[in-house]
Formats: sequence, C-alpha cells, structure tokens
Amino acid sequence: MYYVGIDVGGMSLKAGLIDENGNIVKKMSVKTVPGRKGELIVGDLATLIKDIIKEAGIDEKEVGGVGMGFPGSVWDEKGIVRYCCNIDFVNIPMVKLLKENGINYPIYISNDANCAVLGEAYFGAAKGAKNVVLITLGTGLGTGIIVDGRLLTGNKSAGSECGHMQINIGGAICGCGKKGHYEAYASATALLRQAKDACEKHPESMLNEEFKKKGYEGYVIFECAKAGDETAKKVVAKYIKYIGMGAVSLCNIFFPEYFLVGGGIANNSEIIAPLQRYISRNIYGSKYNPKIKVLAAKHLNDAGIIGAACLAIHGSSAL
Amino acid sequence: MYYVGIDVGGMSLKAGLIDENGNIVKKMSVKTVPGRKGELIVGDLATLIKDIIKEAGIDEKEVGGVGMGFPGSVWDEKGIVRYCCNIDFVNIPMVKLLKENGINYPIYISNDANCAVLGEAYFGAAKGAKNVVLITLGTGLGTGIIVDGRLLTGNKSAGSECGHMQINIGGAICGCGKKGHYEAYASATALLRQAKDACEKHPESMLNEEFKKKGYEGYVIFECAKAGDETAKKVVAKYIKYIGMGAVSLCNIFFPEYFLVGGGIANNSEIIAPLQRYISRNIYGSKYNPKIKVLAAKHLNDAGIIGAACLAIHGSSAL
Repeated sequence: MYYVGIDVGGMSLKAGLIDENGNIVKKMSVKTVPGRKGELIVGDLATLIKDIIKEAGIDEKEVGGVGMGFPGSVWDEKGIVRYCCNIDFVNIPMVKLLKENGINYPIYISNDANCAVLGEAYFGAAKGAKNVVLITLGTGLGTGIIVDGRLLTGNKSAGSECGHMQINIGGAICGCGKKGHYEAYASATALLRQAKDACEKHPESMLNEEFKKKGYEGYVIFECAKAGDETAKKVVAKYIKYIGMGAVSLCNIFFPEYFLVGGGIANNSEIIAPLQRYISRNIYGSKYNPKIKVLAAKHLNDAGIIGAACLAIHGSSAL
Repeated sequence: MYYVGIDVGGMSLKAGLIDENGNIVKKMSVKTVPGRKGELIVGDLATLIKDIIKEAGIDEKEVGGVGMGFPGSVWDEKGIVRYCCNIDFVNIPMVKLLKENGINYPIYISNDANCAVLGEAYFGAAKGAKNVVLITLGTGLGTGIIVDGRLLTGNKSAGSECGHMQINIGGAICGCGKKGHYEAYASATALLRQAKDACEKHPESMLNEEFKKKGYEGYVIFECAKAGDETAKKVVAKYIKYIGMGAVSLCNIFFPEYFLVGGGIANNSEIIAPLQRYISRNIYGSKYNPKIKVLAAKHLNDAGIIGAACLAIHGSSAL
C-alpha cells in the first residue's frame, strides 16, 4: 500500500508518495503565492494529489489514503481547516471540498506538528514508541504529542498548544499576546530576541559583529558559540535552559519514551546533549522513573510530507 | 454487575461496592496505623475485599472487578505500587500479592487522582466527556487526565504529574525541591503559606486574628474573605489566579470538555466562578475554540471509592 502526504505551506504545496516502510517513492511540489484565494488552493491540492499518483504509476487501488498537514488550526475529525498562517483558509471544509474535486481516497487532515510527531513515531527517531512529545522550534513553538499510541488532539482538535503553556509569571510577551508562555522563551524567534538583547549589552562581542555582517540569523549564534565567543555561549546556554524548562514540564505531564526536537535549530548538535542532561536532572522522580530519551527529529526537509503521509497510515487506528 | 473500589490511605482503608450506575451499594472501612508493615496491609486489603462482597450478599459472579487507588506512584499495567505517602509500600507487586491472598477478580490499581477523574467521567461532574482534566488541591496538587476516553498514564505510568509543571522561573519552592512548580502556588499548602505571608504584612487584619483563634486552616481564609476582610480577599483572589495559570496551560495542552477541581477547597463556591472567568479569558484561541466548562468535582467524601471502582469499570476499555 502507498500513502500520499501533503505539506501545505504559504509558499508551496509539497506532495510525497511513501510506501509502507516510510520510503519516499515520489515527490512533487507546486508554488503558491500569498493572497491566492482559498478555493483555488483547494483546486491546486486536488490536482497535486491526482498528479503524484498518476506520475508515480501507482494503481489507484494501492493508495491507502491521503494525509495533509496545515500550518494552523485544524478540526481533524470534521475535516475542517479553521485557519492557517499566510493562507486564505478560514473554516474551510477541506475534506468535503477535496471529495467534490474528485479525491476519493480516505483523507485525513491535521496540524503540521501533529503530522511531524507521527512521522517520527512511525519511521523516525521515535520508531515504535507509544508515548512521544515533539517540539518544533521555529517562528513559533509547535508541539505534536502521542499518548498511548494515539495522537493527542483534545476536544474538537483544539489542544496540543503547548507553546502556550506558561513557564514564567508576567514574563516575556508571546505572539498570542499573553505573557510568560513557553513559545516566548524557546522558539527560534525568542532565541534571536535573546541574542539581540545580549548584543546590546555586549556590543564588543563577536556575536554582535557577525550579526552585522551576516544578518540576524539563528545559525550565526551557534557559529559564534562554537568559535568561543562568551556572549554567544551564554545566549545558547540560557536558551537551552529555557527549552529545558518547558520540556521538563511536558515530560512530567506525559512521561514519554522520547522527547524530540524539530525545526532548523534542532540540527545544532550543541542543543541535544545539554538538553538531555537538563531533563534527566530535573524531571520528577528521576531516581525511580524510566529515562526519557532526548533526540533531534530525524526527518528534516521531508518531515512535512512523511508526517502527513503517516497521518493517513495512522487514520483511526493506534500505533 | 458490581465493582469494588478501594481507597487506600495512611489512616484507613475504605471500600465501596458500586453498581453499574455508580450507586454505592455498600461501604466499609478499616483503620490502619502509620508504621504498619506493608505485607500486613496487603492482608488487610484482601480481607476487606472479601468482606465487603460477602456482607453485601452479592454473588461472586456478579463482581466485575476490583479497583484500587493509592496516594503515591503506581505502575498501573504491572500492578506494582512503587511507593506511597505514609504507607510502607516500596515496589510492592500488589496485584500478584492480592491474587496470592485469594482475590480472583480482575484487579486494577492506579494513583488516586487518576481514579478520581474516572469517577467524575463515569458518574460525576464530567459524565459522558471524552477529554477531562481534574486537579485535586490538598497537601500537594494531584492531577488525573482523560484523553480521548482513556486515562493518561505515560510510559510505565510515570506521567500525569502536572503539579510539577513549572509556572514561574526561579519561583516558590515545591515539595519536590524544585522551584516554580504549579503545586508550590496552587496546592492547599501553598494557599496557607500565602495567607501567612499576607498576615505578616497585615497583622491588623481579621484574617490574622481568626488564624490565632481557629488555627491555620484553609476554611478560615474563605470565611474571612466572605466577611469582607481585605487581606483575606486579596489572598483568595491571588490564589485563584495561581490556580488559573496552571489550569490555562493544561487547557491549552489538553483542551478538555471539563476542567474539574477537587479537594476540600473546591467546595468553596468562591473559587469556581472566577476560575471559569480566568480560564475563558486566557485560553489560546478563545474566540474560535470550544468553551471549557469549569466545575467542582461532584464526588466528595466518597470520591476515593467511587473513583477506584470506576478504574475497574474502565479496565482496558475506553470511555
């Protein structure tokens, strides 16, 4: 059996066809533009699904289903996209519309972080685990959680918004407007803000110089830390502690087998080992409870399509 | 069918026999003493289970199972009590030992807060709901969580320790030794500490006088607040905000249909309405997401036995 995974973004729609072992058989993508009307994008999506199956030369009977990940709020069971970042979707009955556009496979939709954790649990860093927490560090902080082999979605799929867990009373302002949320300390955006603040205090630092030369990019901070710049080293150490604070809370709540970190920043080897130490030292009952393995998410650029395809595999059955 | 529920405490072992509709058919209890050897208590438990079935005059075939709630860490699937507060249980293979003591019904064991949330979901304030979060405010802050009709336990049942979620960086010290945990702000113990601190600043307050007369008890704070004492009113208002902070985080994570508050304090009507307002105002996406109902737990003194019996009903099948 094969599964189609669609990674919906504001700039492109990516499709992947994977086999039952998680191998990508075929990839395709189409560009989109900000401001393109939602109903036209639905048409683009239907065409993309048909095309990838056709071009892969797969018999329609061998397609087990289509999974789709959206960067926004999705009501999974109802097949409705509530809203999306940078895409003109507001309460769109996506599954219904795709069926009207001739897609007759089972279609599953969810938030993209939910897809990502499924991708890791089926074919990635947490393969075979029944309890997994994944955080993705980007503009915001997304979370995908598997509880006892099932995706956590909450009532009407409104849950799993762990970026909006408060870690500090009256603290840094979050993108949502509230104070002290995890996202406001541990997203990639927050790291850049912390680095800029540090540079204001230390204009003499290598970090400040490199920022001016290369622009305010996350990788510059890690480069400077590696090169021994004290300011950058302190920024990174503090940032990992912030990631750790929310991570420990999530581990105490879910006690997963794996705590995974995704997003571009997670590929910096400087993050995972100290985060593992922080979590192991600070989880509740660390003496007698099982160890939680901290790993970077395995799927990088293809995380979106593999995760979405795994949503179709997951369907309504547990891992 | 009937189910036996056992509420294990440091001072007494309580048993209840309930029918399929959650009605208590028979109650019994035996006292125990701090320091009594664990193996003797296992014997007491076996005797109590046999006695309540016998005295209720129920045919053994009509007993569907036995559920037991412990005030401590339990490895549910393995039937092992890892440790208990004030009871000499350390890594006790409880289910195995009870079977050796002649208990041949299916036996299920768990933490008491886990039992409590099941009791509320089957026959209490959250009847019929699939996603429920319950906090119990006492010496500590316990949590019981139902995700998509199933009890959240985590890997080796080490999870659902939401009292140890960090809500404030470097904040108040928790019973576990770490700083800034939810429990350190929102347990009944924390409320008393907050009230004592307020009395030091306001020795002229009614609260301070009443504490001296009646002792440092939680109900005194609520009495004084009702009577209009400004110090007590401020303590209560701040305490509800603290409960709300962790509650909002848990609601963003789980998005339950019901957020329930248990423990003696929850019966103060002053708590639930303002907590509902705080949560409704502060949850993520409050404009478009479903409302979360905030209620006091329904089962009061019998919460332990009803919850434990519901653990036996729950068994391995979802709500």
